[in-house]
Amino acid sequence: MQESTRKVPKPTPERLATYLAALNDLIEREVHTIASRDIEKLTGINAAQFRKDLSYFGEFGRPGIGYDVQGLRDTIARILKVKEEQPVVLVGAGNLGTALLRYPGLMLQNFRIVAVFDNNYNKIGRRIADLEIQDIANLAEANKTHRARIGIITVPAPAAQDVANRLIDSGISAILNFAPTSLKVPSGVVVRNVDFVKELAVLAFHLSEESALS
Amino acid sequence: MQESTRKVPKPTPERLATYLAALNDLIEREVHTIASRDIEKLTGINAAQFRKDLSYFGEFGRPGIGYDVQGLRDTIARILKVKEEQPVVLVGAGNLGTALLRYPGLMLQNFRIVAVFDNNYNKIGRRIADLEIQDIANLAEANKTHRARIGIITVPAPAAQDVANRLIDSGISAILNFAPTSLKVPSGVVVRNVDFVKELAVLAFHLSEESALS
Repeated sequence: MQESTRKVPKPTPERLATYLAALNDLIEREVHTIASRDIEKLTGINAAQFRKDLSYFGEFGRPGIGYDVQGLRDTIARILKVKEEQPVVLVGAGNLGTALLRYPGLMLQNFRIVAVFDNNYNKIGRRIADLEIQDIANLAEANKTHRARIGIITVPAPAAQDVANRLIDSGISAILNFAPTSLKVPSGVVVRNVDFVKELAVLAFHLSEESALS
Repeated sequence: MQESTRKVPKPTPERLATYLAALNDLIEREVHTIASRDIEKLTGINAAQFRKDLSYFGEFGRPGIGYDVQGLRDTIARILKVKEEQPVVLVGAGNLGTALLRYPGLMLQNFRIVAVFDNNYNKIGRRIADLEIQDIANLAEANKTHRARIGIITVPAPAAQDVANRLIDSGISAILNFAPTSLKVPSGVVVRNVDFVKELAVLAFHLSEESALS
Protein backbone atom coordinates (compact mmCIF):
# COMPACT_ATOMS: atom_id res chain seq x y z
CA MET A 1 0.00 0.00 0.00
CA GLN A 2 1.41 3.32 -1.09
CA GLU A 3 2.25 5.88 1.57
CA SER A 4 0.58 9.27 1.37
CA THR A 5 0.35 12.33 3.54
CA ARG A 6 -3.40 11.84 3.90
CA LYS A 7 -3.80 9.12 6.51
CA VAL A 8 -7.14 7.35 6.72
CA PRO A 9 -7.72 5.31 9.91
CA LYS A 10 -8.11 1.60 9.29
CA PRO A 11 -11.80 1.29 10.33
CA THR A 12 -12.87 4.19 8.08
CA PRO A 13 -13.29 2.22 4.82
CA GLU A 14 -15.55 -0.28 6.58
CA ARG A 15 -17.68 2.53 7.98
CA LEU A 16 -17.78 4.19 4.54
CA ALA A 17 -19.09 0.93 3.12
CA THR A 18 -21.74 0.90 5.84
CA TYR A 19 -22.78 4.48 4.95
CA LEU A 20 -22.86 3.49 1.28
CA ALA A 21 -25.20 0.57 2.01
CA ALA A 22 -27.48 2.87 4.05
CA LEU A 23 -27.48 5.49 1.28
CA ASN A 24 -28.31 2.88 -1.36
CA ASP A 25 -31.19 1.81 0.84
CA LEU A 26 -32.39 5.45 1.14
CA ILE A 27 -32.23 5.87 -2.65
CA GLU A 28 -34.42 2.76 -3.00
CA ARG A 29 -36.89 4.38 -0.60
CA GLU A 30 -36.73 7.66 -2.57
CA VAL A 31 -35.38 9.69 0.34
CA HIS A 32 -33.54 12.71 -1.10
CA THR A 33 -31.99 14.58 1.83
CA ILE A 34 -30.67 13.44 5.21
CA ALA A 35 -28.98 14.81 8.32
CA SER A 36 -26.01 13.12 9.95
CA ARG A 37 -28.28 12.10 12.85
CA ASP A 38 -30.36 10.06 10.33
CA ILE A 39 -27.17 8.22 9.37
CA GLU A 40 -26.72 7.46 13.07
CA LYS A 41 -30.23 6.01 13.29
CA LEU A 42 -29.70 3.88 10.18
CA THR A 43 -26.21 2.60 10.87
CA GLY A 44 -25.67 2.88 14.62
CA ILE A 45 -22.50 4.88 13.90
CA ASN A 46 -22.66 8.22 15.67
CA ALA A 47 -23.12 11.43 13.74
CA ALA A 48 -19.79 12.94 14.84
CA GLN A 49 -17.91 9.83 13.66
CA PHE A 50 -19.74 10.01 10.33
CA ARG A 51 -18.71 13.63 9.81
CA LYS A 52 -15.14 12.80 10.84
CA ASP A 53 -14.93 9.88 8.39
CA LEU A 54 -16.05 12.13 5.56
CA SER A 55 -13.64 14.88 6.61
CA TYR A 56 -10.66 12.82 5.39
CA PHE A 57 -11.94 13.25 1.87
CA GLY A 58 -13.17 16.87 1.78
CA GLU A 59 -16.20 18.89 2.79
CA PHE A 60 -19.71 17.58 2.32
CA GLY A 61 -23.20 18.59 3.38
CA ARG A 62 -24.43 22.02 4.40
CA PRO A 63 -25.20 23.07 7.98
CA GLY A 64 -28.95 23.15 8.59
CA ILE A 65 -29.68 21.60 5.19
CA GLY A 66 -27.96 18.26 5.43
CA TYR A 67 -26.71 15.92 2.74
CA ASP A 68 -28.01 15.24 -0.71
CA VAL A 69 -28.47 11.46 -0.62
CA GLN A 70 -27.57 10.75 -4.26
CA GLY A 71 -24.60 13.13 -4.21
CA LEU A 72 -23.20 11.69 -1.00
CA ARG A 73 -23.76 8.16 -2.28
CA ASP A 74 -21.80 8.95 -5.45
CA THR A 75 -19.00 10.61 -3.49
CA ILE A 76 -18.59 7.65 -1.13
CA ALA A 77 -18.79 5.26 -4.08
CA ARG A 78 -15.96 7.20 -5.72
CA ILE A 79 -13.86 7.14 -2.52
CA LEU A 80 -14.40 3.37 -2.24
CA LYS A 81 -13.60 2.93 -5.95
CA VAL A 82 -16.94 1.30 -6.65
CA LYS A 83 -18.04 4.04 -9.05
CA GLU A 84 -16.47 2.23 -12.00
CA GLU A 85 -17.25 -1.42 -12.70
CA GLN A 86 -14.97 -3.78 -10.78
CA PRO A 87 -14.35 -7.16 -12.39
CA VAL A 88 -14.40 -10.04 -9.92
CA VAL A 89 -13.51 -13.72 -10.34
CA LEU A 90 -15.22 -16.43 -8.32
CA VAL A 91 -13.85 -19.86 -7.45
CA GLY A 92 -16.24 -22.57 -6.29
CA ALA A 93 -19.38 -23.18 -8.32
CA GLY A 94 -21.39 -24.81 -5.53
CA ASN A 95 -24.65 -23.59 -4.00
CA LEU A 96 -23.13 -20.52 -2.44
CA GLY A 97 -21.10 -19.57 -5.52
CA THR A 98 -24.23 -19.98 -7.64
CA ALA A 99 -26.21 -17.81 -5.24
CA LEU A 100 -23.58 -15.07 -5.49
CA LEU A 101 -23.49 -15.30 -9.28
CA ARG A 102 -27.23 -14.72 -9.31
CA TYR A 103 -27.24 -12.10 -6.56
CA PRO A 104 -28.63 -8.90 -8.11
CA GLY A 105 -27.00 -6.67 -5.46
CA LEU A 106 -23.50 -7.22 -6.87
CA MET A 107 -24.20 -5.76 -10.30
CA LEU A 108 -26.20 -2.92 -8.77
CA GLN A 109 -23.05 -1.91 -6.90
CA ASN A 110 -20.81 -2.27 -9.96
CA PHE A 111 -19.21 -5.57 -9.04
CA ARG A 112 -19.31 -7.83 -12.06
CA ILE A 113 -18.35 -11.47 -11.73
CA VAL A 114 -16.52 -11.97 -15.01
CA ALA A 115 -15.40 -15.58 -14.62
CA VAL A 116 -16.18 -18.60 -12.48
CA PHE A 117 -13.89 -21.56 -11.81
CA ASP A 118 -14.12 -24.99 -10.23
CA ASN A 119 -11.99 -28.14 -10.15
CA ASN A 120 -14.93 -30.53 -10.48
CA TYR A 121 -15.07 -32.06 -13.96
CA ASN A 122 -18.82 -32.54 -13.58
CA LYS A 123 -19.22 -28.79 -13.30
CA ILE A 124 -16.60 -27.49 -15.74
CA GLY A 125 -18.28 -26.48 -19.02
CA ARG A 126 -21.71 -26.01 -17.46
CA ARG A 127 -23.18 -22.52 -17.31
CA ILE A 128 -24.43 -20.42 -14.41
CA ALA A 129 -26.02 -17.05 -15.11
CA ASP A 130 -24.41 -16.69 -18.58
CA LEU A 131 -20.93 -17.72 -17.43
CA GLU A 132 -19.31 -21.01 -18.36
CA ILE A 133 -17.66 -22.72 -15.42
CA GLN A 134 -13.95 -22.95 -16.24
CA ASP A 135 -11.25 -25.31 -15.05
CA ILE A 136 -9.38 -23.77 -12.10
CA ALA A 137 -6.18 -24.64 -14.00
CA ASN A 138 -7.10 -21.85 -16.46
CA LEU A 139 -7.35 -19.17 -13.80
CA ALA A 140 -4.01 -17.41 -14.36
CA GLU A 141 -4.40 -17.50 -18.15
CA ALA A 142 -8.01 -16.28 -18.04
CA ASN A 143 -7.18 -13.41 -15.71
CA LYS A 144 -4.62 -12.05 -18.19
CA THR A 145 -7.72 -10.99 -20.13
CA HIS A 146 -10.07 -10.08 -17.29
CA ARG A 147 -7.47 -8.29 -15.19
CA ALA A 148 -9.65 -8.76 -12.10
CA ARG A 149 -8.02 -7.81 -8.80
CA ILE A 150 -10.83 -9.07 -6.56
CA GLY A 151 -11.48 -12.78 -6.07
CA ILE A 152 -14.28 -14.57 -4.20
CA ILE A 153 -13.63 -17.98 -2.61
CA THR A 154 -16.67 -20.23 -2.16
CA VAL A 155 -14.93 -23.60 -1.94
CA PRO A 156 -14.87 -25.95 1.09
CA ALA A 157 -12.39 -25.00 3.82
CA PRO A 158 -9.72 -27.62 3.01
CA ALA A 159 -9.38 -26.27 -0.56
CA ALA A 160 -9.44 -22.57 0.30
CA GLN A 161 -5.70 -21.95 0.87
CA ASP A 162 -4.75 -23.55 -2.44
CA VAL A 163 -7.38 -21.46 -4.21
CA ALA A 164 -6.13 -18.31 -2.47
CA ASN A 165 -2.57 -19.06 -3.66
CA ARG A 166 -3.80 -19.52 -7.23
CA LEU A 167 -5.79 -16.29 -7.09
CA ILE A 168 -2.76 -14.36 -5.84
CA ASP A 169 -0.55 -15.91 -8.53
CA SER A 170 -3.12 -14.71 -11.07
CA GLY A 171 -2.91 -11.07 -10.02
CA ILE A 172 -5.67 -10.95 -7.40
CA SER A 173 -4.84 -8.74 -4.43
CA ALA A 174 -8.19 -8.61 -2.60
CA ILE A 175 -10.05 -11.75 -1.51
CA LEU A 176 -13.56 -12.21 -0.15
CA ASN A 177 -13.36 -15.56 1.64
CA PHE A 178 -16.52 -17.54 2.47
CA ALA A 179 -14.62 -20.68 3.51
CA PRO A 180 -14.54 -21.07 7.31
CA THR A 181 -10.75 -21.09 7.54
CA SER A 182 -8.06 -18.44 7.98
CA LEU A 183 -5.99 -17.79 4.87
CA LYS A 184 -2.28 -17.02 4.86
CA VAL A 185 -1.52 -14.34 2.32
CA PRO A 186 1.55 -12.22 1.56
CA SER A 187 1.57 -8.56 2.63
CA GLY A 188 -0.19 -6.37 0.10
CA VAL A 189 -3.04 -8.85 -0.25
CA VAL A 190 -6.22 -8.02 1.69
CA VAL A 191 -8.66 -10.69 2.87
CA ARG A 192 -12.18 -10.17 4.22
CA ASN A 193 -13.91 -13.18 5.73
CA VAL A 194 -17.65 -13.81 5.67
CA ASP A 195 -18.54 -16.38 8.28
CA PHE A 196 -22.28 -17.06 8.72
CA VAL A 197 -21.71 -19.54 11.48
CA LYS A 198 -19.74 -17.02 13.49
CA GLU A 199 -22.62 -14.56 13.15
CA LEU A 200 -25.06 -17.24 14.32
CA ALA A 201 -22.82 -17.98 17.32
CA VAL A 202 -22.91 -14.29 18.33
CA LEU A 203 -26.71 -14.39 18.06
CA ALA A 204 -26.88 -17.55 20.14
CA PHE A 205 -24.83 -15.86 22.86
CA HIS A 206 -27.28 -12.95 22.95
CA LEU A 207 -30.13 -15.40 23.43
CA SER A 208 -28.61 -16.61 26.63
CA GLU A 209 -30.48 -15.36 29.66
CA GLU A 210 -27.27 -15.48 31.64
CA SER A 211 -25.48 -13.02 29.43
CA ALA A 212 -25.44 -9.38 30.45
CA LEU A 213 -23.70 -6.96 28.13
CA SER A 214 -22.18 -3.86 29.63
CA MET B 1 -31.47 -8.82 28.55
CA GLN B 2 -31.24 -9.77 32.20
CA GLU B 3 -28.89 -7.79 34.40
CA SER B 4 -26.13 -9.65 36.19
CA THR B 5 -23.15 -8.73 38.31
CA ARG B 6 -20.82 -10.27 35.73
CA LYS B 7 -20.53 -7.71 32.96
CA VAL B 8 -19.23 -8.88 29.60
CA PRO B 9 -18.10 -6.10 27.23
CA LYS B 10 -20.16 -5.88 24.06
CA PRO B 11 -17.40 -6.91 21.57
CA THR B 12 -16.48 -10.02 23.59
CA PRO B 13 -19.11 -12.39 22.12
CA GLU B 14 -17.98 -11.53 18.60
CA ARG B 15 -14.35 -12.20 19.52
CA LEU B 16 -15.38 -15.47 21.22
CA ALA B 17 -17.09 -16.50 17.98
CA THR B 18 -13.86 -15.68 16.13
CA TYR B 19 -11.84 -17.84 18.55
CA LEU B 20 -14.41 -20.61 18.14
CA ALA B 21 -14.04 -20.52 14.36
CA ALA B 22 -10.23 -20.65 14.68
CA LEU B 23 -10.42 -23.56 17.15
CA ASN B 24 -12.79 -25.48 14.86
CA ASP B 25 -10.27 -24.95 12.09
CA LEU B 26 -7.45 -26.23 14.34
CA ILE B 27 -9.48 -29.34 15.22
CA GLU B 28 -9.93 -30.01 11.49
CA ARG B 29 -6.16 -29.76 11.11
CA GLU B 30 -5.64 -32.08 14.10
CA VAL B 31 -3.79 -29.50 16.19
CA HIS B 32 -4.18 -30.45 19.87
CA THR B 33 -2.50 -27.72 21.92
CA ILE B 34 -2.02 -24.00 21.36
CA ALA B 35 -0.60 -20.92 23.06
CA SER B 36 -2.44 -17.61 23.19
CA ARG B 37 0.11 -16.19 20.72
CA ASP B 38 -1.06 -18.82 18.19
CA ILE B 39 -4.59 -17.47 18.59
CA GLU B 40 -3.18 -14.05 17.81
CA LYS B 41 -1.58 -15.36 14.60
CA LEU B 42 -4.80 -17.08 13.52
CA THR B 43 -7.30 -14.37 14.38
CA GLY B 44 -5.37 -11.10 14.48
CA ILE B 45 -6.72 -10.51 18.00
CA ASN B 46 -3.87 -9.99 20.41
CA ALA B 47 -2.99 -12.59 22.99
CA ALA B 48 -3.68 -10.32 25.98
CA GLN B 49 -7.16 -9.52 24.66
CA PHE B 50 -7.81 -13.23 24.17
CA ARG B 51 -6.86 -14.02 27.78
CA LYS B 52 -8.96 -11.09 29.00
CA ASP B 53 -12.01 -12.25 27.03
CA LEU B 54 -11.74 -15.71 28.55
CA SER B 55 -11.23 -14.28 32.03
CA TYR B 56 -14.89 -13.19 32.20
CA PHE B 57 -15.86 -16.83 32.23
CA GLY B 58 -13.27 -18.45 34.48
CA GLU B 59 -9.71 -19.75 34.32
CA PHE B 60 -8.44 -21.65 31.28
CA GLY B 61 -5.10 -22.87 30.00
CA ARG B 62 -1.96 -23.52 31.96
CA PRO B 63 1.14 -21.29 31.98
CA GLY B 64 3.91 -22.81 29.86
CA ILE B 65 1.62 -25.54 28.57
CA GLY B 66 -1.09 -23.60 26.78
CA TYR B 67 -4.63 -24.54 25.91
CA ASP B 68 -6.13 -27.87 25.03
CA VAL B 69 -7.77 -27.10 21.67
CA GLN B 70 -10.78 -29.40 22.04
CA GLY B 71 -11.38 -28.39 25.65
CA LEU B 72 -11.16 -24.70 24.90
CA ARG B 73 -13.41 -25.15 21.86
CA ASP B 74 -16.04 -26.89 24.00
CA THR B 75 -15.81 -24.23 26.71
CA ILE B 76 -16.28 -21.38 24.25
CA ALA B 77 -19.10 -23.28 22.54
CA ARG B 78 -20.79 -23.60 25.94
CA ILE B 79 -20.33 -19.89 26.68
CA LEU B 80 -21.80 -19.00 23.29
CA LYS B 81 -24.67 -21.49 23.83
CA VAL B 82 -23.82 -23.42 20.69
CA LYS B 83 -23.05 -26.63 22.56
CA GLU B 84 -26.66 -27.74 22.35
CA GLU B 85 -28.49 -27.83 19.02
CA GLN B 86 -30.07 -24.48 18.16
CA PRO B 87 -33.16 -24.62 15.96
CA VAL B 88 -33.24 -21.93 13.28
CA VAL B 89 -35.98 -20.90 10.85
CA LEU B 90 -35.18 -19.48 7.43
CA VAL B 91 -37.35 -17.19 5.32
CA GLY B 92 -36.59 -16.85 1.61
CA ALA B 93 -36.10 -20.00 -0.43
CA GLY B 94 -34.11 -18.36 -3.23
CA ASN B 95 -30.55 -19.15 -4.28
CA LEU B 96 -28.99 -17.83 -1.10
CA GLY B 97 -31.52 -19.50 1.19
CA THR B 98 -30.98 -22.77 -0.66
CA ALA B 99 -27.21 -22.41 -0.32
CA LEU B 100 -27.57 -21.91 3.44
CA LEU B 101 -29.91 -24.88 3.75
CA ARG B 102 -27.26 -27.03 2.09
CA TYR B 103 -24.30 -25.46 3.90
CA PRO B 104 -22.63 -28.24 5.90
CA GLY B 105 -20.99 -25.78 8.33
CA LEU B 106 -24.28 -24.94 10.03
CA MET B 107 -25.03 -28.46 11.22
CA LEU B 108 -21.40 -28.98 12.21
CA GLN B 109 -21.78 -26.06 14.61
CA ASN B 110 -25.12 -27.26 15.97
CA PHE B 111 -27.34 -24.86 14.09
CA ARG B 112 -30.20 -26.80 12.54
CA ILE B 113 -32.52 -25.11 10.09
CA VAL B 114 -35.81 -26.70 11.13
CA ALA B 115 -38.20 -24.91 8.78
CA VAL B 116 -38.09 -22.82 5.61
CA PHE B 117 -40.71 -20.34 4.44
CA ASP B 118 -41.47 -18.32 1.33
CA ASN B 119 -44.41 -16.35 -0.04
CA ASN B 120 -44.01 -17.57 -3.63
CA TYR B 121 -46.70 -20.10 -4.52
CA ASN B 122 -44.37 -21.64 -7.10
CA LYS B 123 -41.99 -22.54 -4.31
CA ILE B 124 -44.36 -23.49 -1.47
CA GLY B 125 -44.62 -27.28 -1.20
CA ARG B 126 -41.32 -27.93 -2.98
CA ARG B 127 -38.47 -29.44 -0.99
CA ILE B 128 -34.91 -28.28 -0.33
CA ALA B 129 -32.55 -30.49 1.60
CA ASP B 130 -35.33 -32.57 3.23
CA LEU B 131 -37.43 -29.56 4.22
CA GLU B 132 -40.69 -28.67 2.57
CA ILE B 133 -40.98 -24.95 1.78
CA GLN B 134 -43.92 -23.63 3.81
CA ASP B 135 -46.18 -20.65 3.27
CA ILE B 136 -44.88 -17.65 5.24
CA ALA B 137 -48.44 -17.30 6.57
CA ASN B 138 -47.78 -20.49 8.61
CA LEU B 139 -44.71 -19.10 10.34
CA ALA B 140 -46.22 -18.24 13.73
CA GLU B 141 -48.16 -21.50 13.90
CA ALA B 142 -45.17 -23.62 12.83
CA ASN B 143 -42.87 -22.01 15.35
CA LYS B 144 -45.17 -23.00 18.20
CA THR B 145 -43.77 -26.48 17.54
CA HIS B 146 -40.21 -25.63 16.59
CA ARG B 147 -39.72 -22.99 19.27
CA ALA B 148 -36.80 -21.51 17.30
CA ARG B 149 -35.46 -18.22 18.60
CA ILE B 150 -33.07 -17.55 15.71
CA GLY B 151 -34.33 -16.58 12.25
CA ILE B 152 -32.44 -16.09 8.99
CA ILE B 153 -33.74 -13.61 6.39
CA THR B 154 -32.76 -14.27 2.77
CA VAL B 155 -35.51 -12.35 0.98
CA PRO B 156 -35.06 -9.27 -1.24
CA ALA B 157 -34.57 -5.98 0.62
CA PRO B 158 -38.11 -4.59 0.12
CA ALA B 159 -39.63 -7.65 1.82
CA ALA B 160 -37.15 -7.89 4.71
CA GLN B 161 -38.86 -5.62 7.27
CA ASP B 162 -42.19 -7.42 6.90
CA VAL B 163 -40.43 -10.75 7.32
CA ALA B 164 -38.58 -9.46 10.39
CA ASN B 165 -41.89 -8.37 11.94
CA ARG B 166 -43.40 -11.80 11.30
CA LEU B 167 -40.36 -13.53 12.78
CA ILE B 168 -40.54 -11.41 15.92
CA ASP B 169 -44.30 -12.05 16.22
CA SER B 170 -43.48 -15.76 16.05
CA GLY B 171 -41.10 -15.70 19.00
CA ILE B 172 -37.81 -15.06 17.21
CA SER B 173 -35.46 -12.75 19.12
CA ALA B 174 -32.25 -13.06 17.10
CA ILE B 175 -32.10 -12.38 13.37
CA LEU B 176 -29.36 -13.00 10.83
CA ASN B 177 -30.22 -10.62 8.00
CA PHE B 178 -28.80 -11.11 4.49
CA ALA B 179 -31.04 -8.48 2.90
CA PRO B 180 -29.16 -5.26 2.18
CA THR B 181 -31.42 -3.08 4.29
CA SER B 182 -31.48 -1.94 7.91
CA LEU B 183 -34.20 -3.55 10.02
CA LYS B 184 -36.15 -1.79 12.75
CA VAL B 185 -36.67 -4.13 15.67
CA PRO B 186 -37.92 -3.66 19.24
CA SER B 187 -35.41 -3.68 22.09
CA GLY B 188 -34.58 -7.21 23.17
CA VAL B 189 -34.29 -8.38 19.56
CA VAL B 190 -30.75 -8.70 18.18
CA VAL B 191 -29.93 -8.36 14.49
CA ARG B 192 -26.66 -9.24 12.74
CA ASN B 193 -26.30 -8.18 9.13
CA VAL B 194 -24.30 -10.03 6.49
CA ASP B 195 -23.60 -7.76 3.56
CA PHE B 196 -21.35 -9.20 0.83
CA VAL B 197 -21.46 -6.04 -1.21
CA LYS B 198 -20.24 -3.99 1.73
CA GLU B 199 -17.32 -6.39 2.12
CA LEU B 200 -16.50 -6.06 -1.57
CA ALA B 201 -16.61 -2.26 -1.27
CA VAL B 202 -14.05 -2.40 1.56
CA LEU B 203 -11.84 -4.60 -0.64
CA ALA B 204 -12.22 -2.20 -3.56
CA PHE B 205 -11.06 0.65 -1.35
CA HIS B 206 -7.95 -1.26 -0.39
CA LEU B 207 -7.14 -1.77 -4.06
CA SER B 208 -6.92 1.94 -4.55
CA GLU B 209 -3.35 3.16 -4.95
CA GLU B 210 -4.35 6.49 -3.48
CA SER B 211 -5.45 5.00 -0.18
CA ALA B 212 -2.98 4.91 2.67
CA LEU B 213 -4.10 3.35 5.92
CA SER B 214 -2.61 4.64 9.12
